[in-house]
Amino acid sequence: METLTLTNMCMVTNEDGKVLMQKHGGNWPGWCFPGGHIEKNEPFFSAVIREVYEETGLTIESPMLCGVKQFFRRNGERYIVLLYQTDTYTGQLRSSPEGEVCWMPVERLYQQELAPGFEEMLPVFLQGHIQEVFYLPDMDTPTYY
Amino acid sequence: METLTLTNMCMVTNEDGKVLMQKHGGNWPGWCFPGGHIEKNEPFFSAVIREVYEETGLTIESPMLCGVKQFFRRNGERYIVLLYQTDTYTGQLRSSPEGEVCWMPVERLYQQELAPGFEEMLPVFLQGHIQEVFYLPDMDTPTYY
Repeated sequence: METLTLTNMCMVTNEDGKVLMQKHGGNWPGWCFPGGHIEKNEPFFSAVIREVYEETGLTIESPMLCGVKQFFRRNGERYIVLLYQTDTYTGQLRSSPEGEVCWMPVERLYQQELAPGFEEMLPVFLQGHIQEVFYLPDMDTPTYY
Repeated sequence: METLTLTNMCMVTNEDGKVLMQKHGGNWPGWCFPGGHIEKNEPFFSAVIREVYEETGLTIESPMLCGVKQFFRRNGERYIVLLYQTDTYTGQLRSSPEGEVCWMPVERLYQQELAPGFEEMLPVFLQGHIQEVFYLPDMDTPTYY
């Protein structure tokens, strides 16, 4: 038994192949995909739909689990991010108090100020054979599986 | 932050389409796929390779994350099982102290004495569009996503 924080993140792609980006402020500043914390007793699948809706106004359908990220905090706590992707959704895009949202071509991602560690997560979303981003305690560079 | 137990399970399929089964004793008796507990600071990917090797003698290659199971213990602890599948491996099959192992045709699974809750996990392995088996606290019947 151990302690943990459980979160999710979702790459939503539109019919033009652009991806849905959110600009975070606060203690994790920069652009990234929408997502957030999984609540107590909440199914993972429902949590990612809820988070994307809250942050972007879009209701995603059929989010597919494509991988996981994990790292460890200094107190030994495990931090897990469940990574999803989908290209189906309904609703109208709108920003939230958590940050501005917009559609962005994938190739433009790399020119933005990205949230810390976000770029290192992209291989899981963009390369089908990679399914885990893993950081050993106190390491800044991930291992991919 | 919450407390958690993290485990894995893997469906290994051979060239005849048979699946690798293990007969558990102890407090979770019955047939199921091999798997076990993820250790502190262990990548999920490495954990499933280690567990399948320890329990069956086979070294699996390219296990793919195909879904998750989660339920909650009476003390509120979250219990997560990461579900993988693969059809590539090397090595010689051998049983371990944790239980007898053998290859079994999928259709014969249902005639065996299966470990509690194992049959309810099979849709994630056998049906591509199902990726989560979720039990609300105190519920015996899962919801599938």
